[in-house]
Amino acid sequence: MSEILEPFTTLMDMDLGALRPEREVVVRRLSDVRAHFLEDGADLDGDPLIYTVYGIPVPPTGSNIQCSTTVVQPGMLGREYFMTKGHFHELRDRAEIYVGLAGTGRLVLATEDGRHAVEPMSRGTVSYVPGGWAHRTVNVGDEPLVFFAAYVGDAGHDYGTVEDRGLPVVVVKGDGGPEVRENPGYGR
Amino acid sequence: MSEILEPFTTLMDMDLGALRPEREVVVRRLSDVRAHFLEDGADLDGDPLIYTVYGIPVPPTGSNIQCSTTVVQPGMLGREYFMTKGHFHELRDRAEIYVGLAGTGRLVLATEDGRHAVEPMSRGTVSYVPGGWAHRTVNVGDEPLVFFAAYVGDAGHDYGTVEDRGLPVVVVKGDGGPEVRENPGYGR
Repeated sequence: MSEILEPFTTLMDMDLGALRPEREVVVRRLSDVRAHFLEDGADLDGDPLIYTVYGIPVPPTGSNIQCSTTVVQPGMLGREYFMTKGHFHELRDRAEIYVGLAGTGRLVLATEDGRHAVEPMSRGTVSYVPGGWAHRTVNVGDEPLVFFAAYVGDAGHDYGTVEDRGLPVVVVKGDGGPEVRENPGYGR
Repeated sequence: MSEILEPFTTLMDMDLGALRPEREVVVRRLSDVRAHFLEDGADLDGDPLIYTVYGIPVPPTGSNIQCSTTVVQPGMLGREYFMTKGHFHELRDRAEIYVGLAGTGRLVLATEDGRHAVEPMSRGTVSYVPGGWAHRTVNVGDEPLVFFAAYVGDAGHDYGTVEDRGLPVVVVKGDGGPEVRENPGYGR
């Protein structure tokens, strides 16, 4: 091995997801994610925060593990819950795991040929996102949805495929709580 | 991609480390780890439990992420604290991350050329174990040391190198608490 990294420690708030030190922060507001929702959010004031990703970046090689925490705010855009953009990995076969820390969510997964799966997220859920599955997290509760993620270091992010085609299903607020519905805009 | 796994969820007890369902359990007793300690543990009754690993196994490829929780019991063998065997990855450059869930520990790391590092472990520590570093966890507290681990799927375990040579340092109980000392048996 030509280069060897040094061990290091990051402190994670196990309820809020904040990291110390803060190494890399990505903030997504409504204006960043509008295209992913069925409605345009014109009824929402300003440009609300939708989610924040706190990263622990390491060199993007297949021998490393990238980690992050994500905080998805509670809220609705029309009948849809606030959610992440969702993405495939650029290297399609790379897997990821999510550990739920706080809140109540749904993990929506989909293959490129249109299969889908929906897994529950809450404190203590360990979700396995296998290679080949796009993944999006949806906050269906009233509190922030917080989770820790780890994925193979060279996975990369392909946001464009999900932005262009959508996912096969959406999670909307029904009379009795969150419901999974066919996405009328899928594949367009 | 010829084969595609299905997404799945495992429930993790965020204090005790237990997983539901229980997929793969490895139990290490004193008789399994005796060779790693400076003393032989003849003063300990029976064959006490030292640590347990609860795995979430997936196919051992470089695109997958293996996860597990580990519970290291509190206790002493002579002046040394109970600890895991420690290992290099068979594929030396593969990284691993540890998320502390409960207890108080030390993560001892070492390169094959004899460098070492010691990182703290407790609830909320996210430890990065880069490729090339052997890693062992030591419970320096009075409660179980519990942590979650994730590593690149094809990393593999090389226990033999650490068993044969030891690590450059040991963690022993000093007058004021845990102390890191040179390992008198290192390299033999």
